[in-house]
Amino acid sequence: MSTTITLAHGAGGRASDELLREVILPAIGEGTGNALCDSAVLPSPGETIAFTTDGFTVTPLFFPGGNIGRLAVFGTVNDLAMVGAVPQVLSLAMIVEEGFSIDVLRQLGREVGAAAREASVRIVTGDTKVVGKGAVDALFVTTSGIGSVAAGLPKLSPDQARPGDALLVSGTMGDHGLAVLAARERLSFTPQVRSDCAPLSPLVQCLLGAVPGVRCLRDPTRGGLASVLNEFARASHAGLVIDEGAVPVHSVVSSLCEILGLDPFYLANEGKLVAIVDGAQAERACAALRDHPLGRDACCIGRVTSEHPGVVVLRTHLGTNRIVEYPTGELLPRIC
Amino acid sequence: MSTTITLAHGAGGRASDELLREVILPAIGEGTGNALCDSAVLPSPGETIAFTTDGFTVTPLFFPGGNIGRLAVFGTVNDLAMVGAVPQVLSLAMIVEEGFSIDVLRQLGREVGAAAREASVRIVTGDTKVVGKGAVDALFVTTSGIGSVAAGLPKLSPDQARPGDALLVSGTMGDHGLAVLAARERLSFTPQVRSDCAPLSPLVQCLLGAVPGVRCLRDPTRGGLASVLNEFARASHAGLVIDEGAVPVHSVVSSLCEILGLDPFYLANEGKLVAIVDGAQAERACAALRDHPLGRDACCIGRVTSEHPGVVVLRTHLGTNRIVEYPTGELLPRIC
Repeated sequence: MSTTITLAHGAGGRASDELLREVILPAIGEGTGNALCDSAVLPSPGETIAFTTDGFTVTPLFFPGGNIGRLAVFGTVNDLAMVGAVPQVLSLAMIVEEGFSIDVLRQLGREVGAAAREASVRIVTGDTKVVGKGAVDALFVTTSGIGSVAAGLPKLSPDQARPGDALLVSGTMGDHGLAVLAARERLSFTPQVRSDCAPLSPLVQCLLGAVPGVRCLRDPTRGGLASVLNEFARASHAGLVIDEGAVPVHSVVSSLCEILGLDPFYLANEGKLVAIVDGAQAERACAALRDHPLGRDACCIGRVTSEHPGVVVLRTHLGTNRIVEYPTGELLPRIC
Repeated sequence: MSTTITLAHGAGGRASDELLREVILPAIGEGTGNALCDSAVLPSPGETIAFTTDGFTVTPLFFPGGNIGRLAVFGTVNDLAMVGAVPQVLSLAMIVEEGFSIDVLRQLGREVGAAAREASVRIVTGDTKVVGKGAVDALFVTTSGIGSVAAGLPKLSPDQARPGDALLVSGTMGDHGLAVLAARERLSFTPQVRSDCAPLSPLVQCLLGAVPGVRCLRDPTRGGLASVLNEFARASHAGLVIDEGAVPVHSVVSSLCEILGLDPFYLANEGKLVAIVDGAQAERACAALRDHPLGRDACCIGRVTSEHPGVVVLRTHLGTNRIVEYPTGELLPRIC
């Protein structure tokens, strides 16, 4: 086999078949039986299911703390987790540029397989297309996923929020966005900023098991915390008040954001969640999150109020109030 | 709103939200409630489900008889139909180039919505990413789908084939591949060659309802009929004998293939199926297919034999035998 991807690898003939059987499936760790057939046939994971899809265009493909393969698995796993589902099966669709290294594809396949095992999901179906040189920037990945939703799980949606509810985050903000930016721009810092990309479903199950009053969950990816808070405020028709000093940010992220003129509230995260919970259960919710390694920096960052509906107000370090604007432009493209 | 896609439309903030609510959802015909949330929560379509994904990179985006939107819906619907599933819900992930026309995106959204209604499926979740100018050629679409599998449906797989079984096709071969090639190369013919792209699940349900002895089904897309026949031969460890004169090809496709030096056996189809059925039920199977408008040209093209296992032999018009090779190169990239 050649060392780079050719158009023949996408033509549906012998080369496609070899690429699948000899490179992709062994790397992911799936057998060559019915794995990655056009369609997988499987028992439904439950009476109620969650279904999601996400495209990944991150550049560079590898960055400190992760790569496009891990991101593609965890991103879809996390979208399922945010509606309270337990992720079960994923699909993997890749669009590859002619000339892409087969060794790198194999390496990314291994990352996908390892990430799937880490997140307790199976890759059951897939598709690989090859396009000519220049028609795509190296490799784009789209994953879709199905999860099981427990019977009786209350609806998790920002329209469930009520004044007095508490806002929680599971950890530090901005790590992923800054790690990708630094890798892309070849900025080197000590200590290195690493992506937080991780599968959040076990953390969500801890939280849901400990606290009945979870109103909604969201992973602050594109647009960061600022985007999620604004979505919450709009959908709930309530106001949000955030205590700037309470929002956890790694000191290195904070310093670099100051130097680069970035705001960690607007940077993407790939292993964090934002939750609205019943105010009376906020302490218990924080404790449940902190019990899990991915939630050890969890804390309460604010509350839902009946004042200024639809608006997110930040109480700053200086004791002043300012509005957290909904992101309007694009500071950092291709962060996920 | 601007008339073209900007990076801000992919940033997860206000512009992304506006694009979704004001362009994509209305075009598809989905409400702005929970439609196209990160994850859809829905009742499972059945105890056994089918799950599939497919990426679409076709160029040009519009071609006689179809476009990337219809192709993305029907391609995934057909992958589900080929395992006997009734397609139920789809996801829609788009990767769009900065500068893409919002009007064209709206038009393609309408095509997706109309195709989904035609195929009786709902688009329940999605994702839109924007990448910088030059990072993708205009627009790539990845759809995933879930279908319900009836209890007691026999396993449809080429390893179920037995000597004496019949090979059927549901109609003419090569229309889609030639239509896209002609559109891309701006070749104009009279009559025009049109893509056959269509949803095959109703046709499959007709066949399965009429004939218990269906062994397997496949839609001959990339690599065409030649690829499917070779996959069947390999997986069944049987030989296949095909009667060249029995394979239906539109006269215009046949003439053009001769002029262009192409073989319709290797051209993609997007609204046709190949079936292996119990030889004793071949006539009934053909009749069942012909009862449906998408199968009116259905016919028996050959049989499974215990001779030359793994090899597809063509009985030519001249009465000679030749081997139908597994496609090894790429004649026509980006056909789907």
